[in-house]
Amino acid sequence: MEKLKSLERVEESLAKLPSVGKKSAERMAYAMLDMDEDSLEEFSLAIKELKEKIHVCPICGNLTEDEICEICSDTSRDQSTLLVVSHPKDLLAFEKAEGFHGLYHVLGGTISLSKGKGVEDLSINPLIKRIEEGNFKEVIIATNPTIDGETTALYLAKILEKYPLNVTRIAYGLPMGGNLDYTDSMTISKALEGRRKI
Amino acid sequence: MEKLKSLERVEESLAKLPSVGKKSAERMAYAMLDMDEDSLEEFSLAIKELKEKIHVCPICGNLTEDEICEICSDTSRDQSTLLVVSHPKDLLAFEKAEGFHGLYHVLGGTISLSKGKGVEDLSINPLIKRIEEGNFKEVIIATNPTIDGETTALYLAKILEKYPLNVTRIAYGLPMGGNLDYTDSMTISKALEGRRKI
Repeated sequence: MEKLKSLERVEESLAKLPSVGKKSAERMAYAMLDMDEDSLEEFSLAIKELKEKIHVCPICGNLTEDEICEICSDTSRDQSTLLVVSHPKDLLAFEKAEGFHGLYHVLGGTISLSKGKGVEDLSINPLIKRIEEGNFKEVIIATNPTIDGETTALYLAKILEKYPLNVTRIAYGLPMGGNLDYTDSMTISKALEGRRKI
Repeated sequence: MEKLKSLERVEESLAKLPSVGKKSAERMAYAMLDMDEDSLEEFSLAIKELKEKIHVCPICGNLTEDEICEICSDTSRDQSTLLVVSHPKDLLAFEKAEGFHGLYHVLGGTISLSKGKGVEDLSINPLIKRIEEGNFKEVIIATNPTIDGETTALYLAKILEKYPLNVTRIAYGLPMGGNLDYTDSMTISKALEGRRKI
Protein backbone atom coordinates (compact mmCIF):
# COMPACT_ATOMS: atom_id res chain seq x y z
CA MET A 1 0.00 0.00 0.00
CA GLU A 2 1.29 3.45 -0.88
CA LYS A 3 1.44 6.03 1.83
CA LEU A 4 -1.28 8.67 1.72
CA LYS A 5 -0.07 11.85 0.03
CA SER A 6 -1.75 14.15 2.56
CA LEU A 7 -0.02 12.38 5.43
CA GLU A 8 3.30 12.36 3.64
CA ARG A 9 3.14 16.12 3.03
CA VAL A 10 2.67 16.79 6.72
CA GLU A 11 5.44 14.33 7.62
CA GLU A 12 7.87 16.00 5.24
CA SER A 13 7.24 19.38 6.81
CA LEU A 14 7.53 17.98 10.34
CA ALA A 15 10.80 16.24 9.49
CA LYS A 16 12.36 19.64 8.79
CA LEU A 17 12.07 20.50 12.48
CA PRO A 18 15.02 19.98 14.83
CA SER A 19 15.32 16.44 16.27
CA VAL A 20 12.30 15.14 14.37
CA GLY A 21 13.22 12.00 12.41
CA LYS A 22 11.10 10.12 9.87
CA LYS A 23 9.55 7.85 12.50
CA SER A 24 8.63 10.70 14.85
CA ALA A 25 7.20 12.70 11.95
CA GLU A 26 5.02 9.71 11.09
CA ARG A 27 3.74 9.37 14.65
CA MET A 28 3.07 13.09 14.84
CA ALA A 29 1.15 13.11 11.56
CA TYR A 30 -1.04 10.24 12.74
CA ALA A 31 -1.61 12.03 16.03
CA MET A 32 -2.78 15.05 14.04
CA LEU A 33 -5.41 12.88 12.37
CA ASP A 34 -6.80 12.25 15.84
CA MET A 35 -7.04 15.96 16.65
CA ASP A 36 -10.33 17.75 16.10
CA GLU A 37 -10.79 20.02 13.07
CA ASP A 38 -10.58 23.20 15.15
CA SER A 39 -7.20 22.29 16.62
CA LEU A 40 -5.80 21.53 13.18
CA GLU A 41 -7.24 24.74 11.75
CA GLU A 42 -5.58 26.69 14.57
CA PHE A 43 -2.30 24.79 14.08
CA SER A 44 -2.32 25.59 10.37
CA LEU A 45 -3.18 29.25 10.93
CA ALA A 46 -0.58 29.69 13.67
CA ILE A 47 2.15 28.50 11.31
CA LYS A 48 0.84 30.66 8.47
CA GLU A 49 0.82 33.77 10.62
CA LEU A 50 4.12 33.11 12.34
CA LYS A 51 6.31 34.98 9.89
CA GLU A 52 3.63 37.43 8.89
CA LYS A 53 3.41 38.87 12.39
CA ILE A 54 6.96 38.51 13.66
CA HIS A 55 9.86 40.63 12.47
CA VAL A 56 13.25 41.70 13.72
CA CYS A 57 13.59 44.76 16.00
CA PRO A 58 15.51 47.40 13.98
CA ILE A 59 17.46 48.45 17.09
CA CYS A 60 18.63 45.23 18.75
CA GLY A 61 17.77 42.37 16.36
CA ASN A 62 15.36 40.70 18.79
CA LEU A 63 12.11 39.24 17.46
CA THR A 64 9.01 41.35 17.92
CA GLU A 65 5.41 41.78 16.83
CA ASP A 66 5.65 45.54 17.46
CA GLU A 67 7.64 48.19 15.63
CA ILE A 68 10.36 48.32 18.30
CA CYS A 69 10.77 45.35 20.66
CA GLU A 70 9.51 45.37 24.20
CA ILE A 71 12.99 45.61 25.70
CA CYS A 72 14.27 48.49 23.56
CA SER A 73 11.01 50.37 24.26
CA ASP A 74 11.38 49.93 28.03
CA THR A 75 13.07 53.10 29.33
CA SER A 76 13.16 51.70 32.86
CA ARG A 77 15.86 49.20 31.84
CA ASP A 78 19.51 49.97 32.54
CA GLN A 79 20.67 51.85 29.43
CA SER A 80 24.35 51.50 30.30
CA THR A 81 24.75 47.72 29.99
CA LEU A 82 24.52 45.83 26.73
CA LEU A 83 24.37 42.05 26.55
CA VAL A 84 25.35 40.58 23.19
CA VAL A 85 23.87 37.22 22.16
CA SER A 86 23.86 35.17 18.97
CA HIS A 87 20.16 34.36 18.69
CA PRO A 88 16.79 35.67 19.92
CA LYS A 89 16.25 32.41 21.82
CA ASP A 90 19.42 33.10 23.83
CA LEU A 91 18.01 36.50 24.74
CA LEU A 92 14.87 34.74 25.92
CA ALA A 93 16.97 32.41 28.09
CA PHE A 94 18.45 35.46 29.88
CA GLU A 95 15.03 37.04 30.30
CA LYS A 96 13.72 33.83 31.82
CA ALA A 97 16.66 33.76 34.25
CA GLU A 98 15.58 37.27 35.34
CA GLY A 99 19.08 38.33 36.41
CA PHE A 100 19.70 40.99 33.77
CA HIS A 101 18.00 44.36 33.40
CA GLY A 102 20.05 46.09 30.71
CA LEU A 103 19.68 46.06 26.94
CA TYR A 104 20.48 43.36 24.39
CA HIS A 105 22.07 43.09 21.01
CA VAL A 106 21.35 40.06 18.84
CA LEU A 107 24.11 39.21 16.36
CA GLY A 108 22.05 36.80 14.29
CA GLY A 109 24.62 33.99 14.57
CA THR A 110 28.31 33.44 15.23
CA ILE A 111 31.41 33.65 13.11
CA SER A 112 31.73 30.13 11.74
CA LEU A 113 34.45 28.84 9.47
CA SER A 114 32.67 25.51 9.06
CA LYS A 115 29.38 27.16 8.02
CA GLY A 116 31.15 29.87 6.02
CA LYS A 117 29.61 32.56 8.18
CA GLY A 118 31.75 35.68 8.42
CA VAL A 119 31.78 39.00 10.21
CA GLU A 120 29.72 40.66 7.47
CA ASP A 121 26.86 38.16 8.02
CA LEU A 122 26.39 39.27 11.62
CA SER A 123 24.87 42.44 13.03
CA ILE A 124 28.26 43.87 14.05
CA ASN A 125 28.20 47.28 12.33
CA PRO A 126 24.84 48.10 13.96
CA LEU A 127 26.39 47.04 17.28
CA ILE A 128 29.32 49.46 16.83
CA LYS A 129 26.91 52.23 15.83
CA ARG A 130 24.86 51.63 18.98
CA ILE A 131 27.99 51.77 21.12
CA GLU A 132 29.21 54.97 19.47
CA GLU A 133 25.86 56.69 19.81
CA GLY A 134 24.81 55.27 23.19
CA ASN A 135 26.11 55.63 26.74
CA PHE A 136 27.12 52.07 27.45
CA LYS A 137 29.56 51.43 30.27
CA GLU A 138 29.69 47.67 29.87
CA VAL A 139 29.24 45.23 27.00
CA ILE A 140 28.74 41.62 28.10
CA ILE A 141 29.45 39.07 25.42
CA ALA A 142 27.22 36.03 25.83
CA THR A 143 27.81 33.91 22.76
CA ASN A 144 27.74 30.14 23.34
CA PRO A 145 30.82 28.51 24.93
CA THR A 146 31.64 26.70 21.68
CA ILE A 147 34.50 27.20 19.24
CA ASP A 148 32.42 29.52 17.05
CA GLY A 149 31.03 31.35 20.06
CA GLU A 150 34.53 31.89 21.49
CA THR A 151 35.88 33.07 18.14
CA THR A 152 33.06 35.58 17.91
CA ALA A 153 33.60 36.77 21.49
CA LEU A 154 37.33 37.30 20.94
CA TYR A 155 36.69 39.09 17.68
CA LEU A 156 34.18 41.43 19.34
CA ALA A 157 36.51 42.08 22.29
CA LYS A 158 39.23 43.05 19.83
CA ILE A 159 37.16 45.53 17.83
CA LEU A 160 35.63 47.02 20.98
CA GLU A 161 39.07 47.64 22.56
CA LYS A 162 39.21 51.26 21.42
CA TYR A 163 35.99 52.28 23.14
CA PRO A 164 35.87 53.46 26.78
CA LEU A 165 33.95 50.35 27.88
CA ASN A 166 34.26 47.33 30.09
CA VAL A 167 33.98 44.41 27.70
CA THR A 168 33.16 41.27 29.68
CA ARG A 169 32.50 37.64 28.84
CA ILE A 170 29.81 35.60 30.54
CA ALA A 171 31.40 33.19 33.05
CA TYR A 172 31.95 29.53 32.34
CA GLY A 173 29.24 28.26 34.54
CA LEU A 174 28.12 26.64 31.32
CA PRO A 175 29.76 23.36 30.36
CA MET A 176 32.05 23.83 27.36
CA GLY A 177 30.42 22.66 24.14
CA GLY A 178 27.03 23.26 25.71
CA ASN A 179 24.09 25.16 24.38
CA LEU A 180 22.73 28.31 26.01
CA ASP A 181 19.11 27.71 25.34
CA TYR A 182 19.20 24.22 26.87
CA THR A 183 20.66 25.57 30.10
CA ASP A 184 18.60 25.94 33.26
CA SER A 185 17.93 29.41 34.63
CA MET A 186 20.03 28.87 37.77
CA THR A 187 23.16 28.07 35.78
CA ILE A 188 22.50 31.02 33.50
CA SER A 189 22.18 33.35 36.48
CA LYS A 190 25.43 32.02 38.01
CA ALA A 191 27.24 32.44 34.74
CA LEU A 192 26.02 36.00 34.50
CA GLU A 193 27.13 36.84 38.05
CA GLY A 194 30.61 35.43 37.46
CA ARG A 195 31.30 37.47 34.32
CA ARG A 196 34.85 38.81 34.04
CA LYS A 197 36.70 41.34 31.94
CA ILE A 198 38.16 39.99 28.70
CA MET B 1 9.89 40.14 28.45
CA GLU B 2 6.65 38.46 27.45
CA LYS B 3 6.82 35.69 24.94
CA LEU B 4 5.62 36.58 21.45
CA LYS B 5 2.00 35.54 20.94
CA SER B 6 2.61 34.22 17.42
CA LEU B 7 5.40 31.96 18.64
CA GLU B 8 3.39 30.83 21.62
CA ARG B 9 0.47 29.83 19.40
CA VAL B 10 2.70 27.61 17.29
CA GLU B 11 4.34 26.15 20.41
CA GLU B 12 0.97 25.30 21.95
CA SER B 13 -0.07 23.41 18.83
CA LEU B 14 3.27 21.60 18.59
CA ALA B 15 3.10 20.60 22.26
CA LYS B 16 -0.07 18.62 21.52
CA LEU B 17 1.98 16.20 19.40
CA PRO B 18 3.29 12.95 20.92
CA SER B 19 6.63 13.26 22.76
CA VAL B 20 6.89 17.00 22.18
CA GLY B 21 7.45 18.82 25.48
CA LYS B 22 7.43 22.57 26.13
CA LYS B 23 11.14 22.92 25.48
CA SER B 24 11.09 20.96 22.20
CA ALA B 25 8.05 22.92 21.05
CA GLU B 26 9.98 26.14 21.70
CA ARG B 27 12.99 24.96 19.71
CA MET B 28 10.76 23.81 16.87
CA ALA B 29 8.90 27.13 16.74
CA TYR B 30 12.19 29.04 16.57
CA ALA B 31 13.40 26.69 13.84
CA MET B 32 10.24 27.52 11.90
CA LEU B 33 11.16 31.19 12.05
CA ASP B 34 14.34 30.26 10.18
CA MET B 35 12.44 28.44 7.42
CA ASP B 36 11.62 30.30 4.23
CA GLU B 37 8.10 31.59 3.62
CA ASP B 38 7.33 28.89 1.03
CA SER B 39 8.15 26.05 3.40
CA LEU B 40 5.96 27.52 6.11
CA GLU B 41 3.13 28.12 3.64
CA GLU B 42 3.36 24.48 2.56
CA PHE B 43 3.55 23.30 6.18
CA SER B 44 0.43 25.27 7.04
CA LEU B 45 -1.47 24.07 3.97
CA ALA B 46 -0.48 20.43 4.50
CA ILE B 47 -1.96 20.51 8.00
CA LYS B 48 -5.09 22.30 6.81
CA GLU B 49 -5.72 19.76 4.08
CA LEU B 50 -4.85 16.71 6.17
CA LYS B 51 -8.35 16.02 7.45
CA GLU B 52 -10.08 17.50 4.43
CA LYS B 53 -8.59 14.89 2.10
CA ILE B 54 -8.31 11.85 4.34
CA HIS B 55 -11.27 9.80 5.53
CA VAL B 56 -11.96 6.31 6.82
CA CYS B 57 -12.56 3.43 4.37
CA PRO B 58 -16.21 2.36 4.85
CA ILE B 59 -15.24 -1.31 4.46
CA CYS B 60 -12.17 -1.84 6.63
CA GLY B 61 -11.64 1.37 8.62
CA ASN B 62 -8.26 2.13 7.05
CA LEU B 63 -7.41 5.72 6.13
CA THR B 64 -7.80 6.66 2.49
CA GLU B 65 -8.02 9.60 0.11
CA ASP B 66 -10.22 7.53 -2.24
CA GLU B 67 -13.76 6.31 -1.77
CA ILE B 68 -12.66 2.74 -0.92
CA CYS B 69 -9.10 2.17 0.31
CA GLU B 70 -6.36 0.78 -1.89
CA ILE B 71 -6.33 -2.58 -0.11
CA CYS B 72 -10.08 -3.25 -0.18
CA SER B 73 -10.11 -2.26 -3.88
CA ASP B 74 -7.31 -4.69 -4.73
CA THR B 75 -9.00 -7.91 -5.93
CA SER B 76 -5.61 -9.63 -6.30
CA ARG B 77 -5.25 -9.79 -2.52
CA ASP B 78 -6.15 -12.98 -0.66
CA GLN B 79 -9.86 -12.54 0.18
CA SER B 80 -9.87 -15.42 2.66
CA THR B 81 -7.58 -13.99 5.34
CA LEU B 82 -8.47 -11.04 7.53
CA LEU B 83 -5.95 -9.31 9.78
CA VAL B 84 -7.49 -7.27 12.59
CA VAL B 85 -5.54 -4.28 13.95
CA SER B 86 -6.33 -1.47 16.36
CA HIS B 87 -5.09 1.50 14.34
CA PRO B 88 -4.37 2.47 10.72
CA LYS B 89 -0.69 2.94 11.61
CA ASP B 90 -0.53 -0.71 12.70
CA LEU B 91 -1.92 -1.70 9.30
CA LEU B 92 0.85 0.37 7.71
CA ALA B 93 3.44 -1.46 9.82
CA PHE B 94 2.25 -4.79 8.36
CA GLU B 95 2.24 -3.40 4.84
CA LYS B 96 5.81 -2.20 5.32
CA ALA B 97 6.84 -5.66 6.54
CA GLU B 98 5.42 -7.03 3.25
CA GLY B 99 4.62 -10.49 4.68
CA PHE B 100 0.82 -10.28 4.48
CA HIS B 101 -1.35 -10.28 1.35
CA GLY B 102 -4.87 -10.64 2.74
CA LEU B 103 -7.35 -8.02 3.88
CA TYR B 104 -7.45 -5.88 7.02
CA HIS B 105 -9.95 -4.70 9.55
CA VAL B 106 -9.19 -1.64 11.68
CA LEU B 107 -10.96 -1.59 15.05
CA GLY B 108 -10.23 2.05 15.81
CA GLY B 109 -8.72 1.28 19.22
CA THR B 110 -8.75 -1.38 21.92
CA ILE B 111 -11.07 -2.21 24.76
CA SER B 112 -9.69 -0.15 27.62
CA LEU B 113 -11.00 -0.04 31.16
CA SER B 114 -8.58 2.75 32.05
CA LYS B 115 -9.66 4.95 29.14
CA GLY B 116 -13.31 3.94 29.46
CA LYS B 117 -13.30 2.52 25.94
CA GLY B 118 -15.78 -0.30 25.48
CA VAL B 119 -16.83 -2.76 22.82
CA GLU B 120 -19.37 -0.33 21.37
CA ASP B 121 -16.62 2.22 20.67
CA LEU B 122 -14.79 -0.16 18.35
CA SER B 123 -15.63 -1.30 14.83
CA ILE B 124 -16.73 -4.78 15.97
CA ASN B 125 -20.23 -5.01 14.50
CA PRO B 126 -18.90 -4.12 11.03
CA LEU B 127 -16.25 -6.83 11.56
CA ILE B 128 -18.90 -9.45 12.32
CA LYS B 129 -20.94 -8.31 9.31
CA ARG B 130 -17.87 -8.70 7.08
CA ILE B 131 -17.23 -12.20 8.43
CA GLU B 132 -20.86 -13.23 7.94
CA GLU B 133 -21.02 -11.89 4.40
CA GLY B 134 -17.48 -12.77 3.28
CA ASN B 135 -15.58 -16.00 2.70
CA PHE B 136 -12.89 -15.70 5.33
CA LYS B 137 -11.08 -18.84 6.42
CA GLU B 138 -8.79 -17.19 8.93
CA VAL B 139 -8.99 -14.11 11.13
CA ILE B 140 -5.63 -13.02 12.56
CA ILE B 141 -5.89 -10.78 15.60
CA ALA B 142 -2.99 -8.35 15.72
CA THR B 143 -3.77 -5.96 18.53
CA ASN B 144 -0.77 -4.77 20.57
CA PRO B 145 0.73 -7.18 23.14
CA THR B 146 -0.46 -4.96 26.00
CA ILE B 147 -3.16 -5.54 28.60
CA ASP B 148 -5.78 -3.70 26.53
CA GLY B 149 -4.64 -5.40 23.33
CA GLU B 150 -4.85 -8.84 24.97
CA THR B 151 -8.28 -8.11 26.42
CA THR B 152 -9.50 -7.09 22.99
CA ALA B 153 -7.97 -10.18 21.35
CA LEU B 154 -9.60 -12.54 23.84
CA TYR B 155 -12.94 -10.78 23.51
CA LEU B 156 -12.81 -11.09 19.72
CA ALA B 157 -11.76 -14.76 19.90
CA LYS B 158 -14.78 -15.41 22.13
CA ILE B 159 -17.37 -13.75 19.90
CA LEU B 160 -15.85 -15.30 16.76
CA GLU B 161 -16.00 -18.83 18.24
CA LYS B 162 -19.29 -19.66 16.57
CA TYR B 163 -18.07 -18.99 13.04
CA PRO B 164 -16.34 -21.66 10.92
CA LEU B 165 -13.01 -19.84 11.05
CA ASN B 166 -9.49 -20.23 12.27
CA VAL B 167 -9.05 -17.37 14.72
CA THR B 168 -5.33 -16.82 15.32
CA ARG B 169 -3.27 -14.41 17.36
CA ILE B 170 -0.08 -12.85 16.07
CA ALA B 171 2.94 -14.53 17.75
CA TYR B 172 4.82 -12.99 20.62
CA GLY B 173 7.85 -12.04 18.68
CA LEU B 174 7.01 -8.62 20.04
CA PRO B 175 8.25 -7.82 23.54
CA MET B 176 5.32 -7.65 25.98
CA GLY B 177 4.28 -4.09 26.69
CA GLY B 178 5.72 -3.04 23.35
CA ASN B 179 4.19 -1.00 20.63
CA LEU B 180 3.47 -2.36 17.15
CA ASP B 181 4.28 0.72 15.21
CA TYR B 182 7.70 1.11 16.84
CA THR B 183 8.67 -2.44 15.88
CA ASP B 184 11.06 -3.19 13.04
CA SER B 185 9.78 -5.00 9.95
CA MET B 186 11.79 -8.17 10.62
CA THR B 187 10.23 -8.69 14.05
CA ILE B 188 6.81 -7.97 12.62
CA SER B 189 7.32 -10.59 9.88
CA LYS B 190 8.50 -13.17 12.44
CA ALA B 191 5.54 -12.50 14.65
CA LEU B 192 3.23 -12.95 11.70
CA GLU B 193 4.83 -16.27 10.70
CA GLY B 194 4.58 -17.62 14.24
CA ARG B 195 0.86 -16.97 14.62
CA ARG B 196 -1.11 -19.67 16.43
CA LYS B 197 -4.70 -20.60 16.97
CA ILE B 198 -6.36 -18.98 19.99
